[in-house]
Amino acid sequence: MSTAIDEALEIFCRGATEVLVLNELVEKLKLNRPLRIKAGFDPTAPDLHLGHTVLINKLKHLQDLGHEILFLIGDFTGRIGDPTGKNITRQPLTTEQVLENAKTYESQIYKILDPNKTKIVFNSQWLDSFSAKDLISLAAKQTVARMLERDDFSKRYRDGQPIAIHEFLYPLLQGYDSVELKADVELGGTDQKFNLLMGRELQKIYHQSPQIVITMPLLEGLDGVKKMSKSLDNYIGIAESADTMFGKIMSVSDELMWRYYELLSFISLSEIVALKEKVQDGMNPRDVKILLAKELITRFHDANAATEAEARFHQQFSQGLIPEDIPEVNIAPQGQSIALVHAMKEAGLTKSTSEAMRMISQGAVKIDGERVGSTDHQLKKGERIVVQVGKRRFSKINVSESKPK
Amino acid sequence: MSTAIDEALEIFCRGATEVLVLNELVEKLKLNRPLRIKAGFDPTAPDLHLGHTVLINKLKHLQDLGHEILFLIGDFTGRIGDPTGKNITRQPLTTEQVLENAKTYESQIYKILDPNKTKIVFNSQWLDSFSAKDLISLAAKQTVARMLERDDFSKRYRDGQPIAIHEFLYPLLQGYDSVELKADVELGGTDQKFNLLMGRELQKIYHQSPQIVITMPLLEGLDGVKKMSKSLDNYIGIAESADTMFGKIMSVSDELMWRYYELLSFISLSEIVALKEKVQDGMNPRDVKILLAKELITRFHDANAATEAEARFHQQFSQGLIPEDIPEVNIAPQGQSIALVHAMKEAGLTKSTSEAMRMISQGAVKIDGERVGSTDHQLKKGERIVVQVGKRRFSKINVSESKPK
Repeated sequence: MSTAIDEALEIFCRGATEVLVLNELVEKLKLNRPLRIKAGFDPTAPDLHLGHTVLINKLKHLQDLGHEILFLIGDFTGRIGDPTGKNITRQPLTTEQVLENAKTYESQIYKILDPNKTKIVFNSQWLDSFSAKDLISLAAKQTVARMLERDDFSKRYRDGQPIAIHEFLYPLLQGYDSVELKADVELGGTDQKFNLLMGRELQKIYHQSPQIVITMPLLEGLDGVKKMSKSLDNYIGIAESADTMFGKIMSVSDELMWRYYELLSFISLSEIVALKEKVQDGMNPRDVKILLAKELITRFHDANAATEAEARFHQQFSQGLIPEDIPEVNIAPQGQSIALVHAMKEAGLTKSTSEAMRMISQGAVKIDGERVGSTDHQLKKGERIVVQVGKRRFSKINVSESKPK
Repeated sequence: MSTAIDEALEIFCRGATEVLVLNELVEKLKLNRPLRIKAGFDPTAPDLHLGHTVLINKLKHLQDLGHEILFLIGDFTGRIGDPTGKNITRQPLTTEQVLENAKTYESQIYKILDPNKTKIVFNSQWLDSFSAKDLISLAAKQTVARMLERDDFSKRYRDGQPIAIHEFLYPLLQGYDSVELKADVELGGTDQKFNLLMGRELQKIYHQSPQIVITMPLLEGLDGVKKMSKSLDNYIGIAESADTMFGKIMSVSDELMWRYYELLSFISLSEIVALKEKVQDGMNPRDVKILLAKELITRFHDANAATEAEARFHQQFSQGLIPEDIPEVNIAPQGQSIALVHAMKEAGLTKSTSEAMRMISQGAVKIDGERVGSTDHQLKKGERIVVQVGKRRFSKINVSESKPK
């Protein structure tokens, strides 16, 4: 095998959970032409976080190797919404919403991908003209038993949880996209393995060379346990401010830091090994975390922002000082005073007064640098204070004299 | 309940295996308007036999009550054929073939139904314009578990026999036809119960009053055991000659005769009871069979044909004579003679020479009224004989002198 193919293989495989089938990938690489790399994305809520970038990073590396990236937005089903009508959060999207979401995607993914080498495609392009007859013919190509092999389907069927019949059609449509795109390779999360294999199987039926399936691990969130997701609030959004990113990355465990290095950093595997050795020789892991934070902030903002965020981080955390630009909030009490817990909630420092009470009880709340001892603490009219919750949440609260209501 | 409704109910229920749900049917009858009665038929091979007429007779009786008959030809799926491509006997039908088959249906069913009160409808009318999106929305309305309740599906799934996914879509489409037709009642064989209920369920989802489901038993064939079907060769075709019908009906067991009375005769239940009493009092069941044969031949041919068939029957079977109009066949042997078994096959008296041998061995073959004793019997050039197989098969065979080849 040539060195070039060896090197390409290493890049294809880095961080991947599975590559199916490796020797077919070697054959495709030997063709010595740009491979068509497909990755499918949901057309809704394109608020990307680092979890999504595991896949996008891989696309970038394959793009750098000269391959063609097909960024597929699955708008056909997105525009149907939830046809059972049970899931009100899955309202049908309009064409305008899809296009708008696509723009938001673009603005985010082009922080990583090269716009000139990326093709954004919509599956409505071919599925909108699909007739019921076409769909019946497609559905005839797979069996019920094969579908019930998918983990979530088999579990739900076993547990007596309903599976609506159209749910069997979606993996087929997703697989058919690979046929339409003549994909050589499809990338997806490990939770997508079944659907990616469906593409392989349908391509064979349609007399195409089956795509290589590469599954990428699901990135753990800040807690190091659960999958990074917005709803679990354990994420780092790629549109978040440099300071927030910096703080969040500094908050992860040393173990998770290495995981993030593997899946999020662009430095080579040998450089990562070198860093690990330095830590064993006494380097402070905090400084390794700073390197990662700066790399990621440089990617999503720029080098300057990274340097500044680091400076502010040192000032705030290492030297115990309160940062310079703290948001200011005016609060107008109904009477002569307001309970601190209510003010904290109103200032957005906590989501609820009960969370505020808990934070105070845990000793995690300071007023002007002094720990608050009582959950009954009252703020008087005219007070102007800085309230700090945990390490990173700050707010200047002005208890106003006048009542605006 | 009024007498009229009572009487109507009796007609709706005669011979039916199940009526679901009876009290809803009573409510519909109280509306005092023509009910929309749906029955679906396959668009292929419309070679009807008495088995099919169990349903068509019921339609006729409901039509006589003033209800509207919707004779649905399921051409949408018929024109798709077998989308798996595995069943070569289910080739896709063209529109022309469907229309031609529909004409053949008409010519047969109008021997029973009143053309002026029957509406022939094709489901391609609404399903041709169905998009993939429409089908997805329809598929969302039922669950995989519900589909796997259908007897044949659950059995196949249990036995590891493949069920292609599109097979789950067909009952939905059939059910949707009821929505489109706003059917009040749907009739079908007992083997169709699941699909008929699907119509009920979908109508409810589409906010319609659910159709009443009436299942009719599957008529036993001449053997009295298996379902009447062309492929089992135990059928009486409604286009068959009066003599063939007469002979076939006379050949059934006395027990099966009563079953045929119930499901095929139009005489009232009380008249049937009276006939049974007469038989108990000594009437020859053969004469009751003759009455049934004449009723059916009158329906599918005319009264004259029935009388003549009866006369020939008496002549042939009762008096042991050979009938008048026997088909003549010229057979040219390769040499000076031909084996009787080959001549029988060539004359169409048996399907194969081995069947001919079996019939001879059983003593069921006569030449000019004399039983043939040997399976080696040869016919010489120039012989002109009448060969009889069993009771009803006759052929005049001329062993020709000249060799046409």
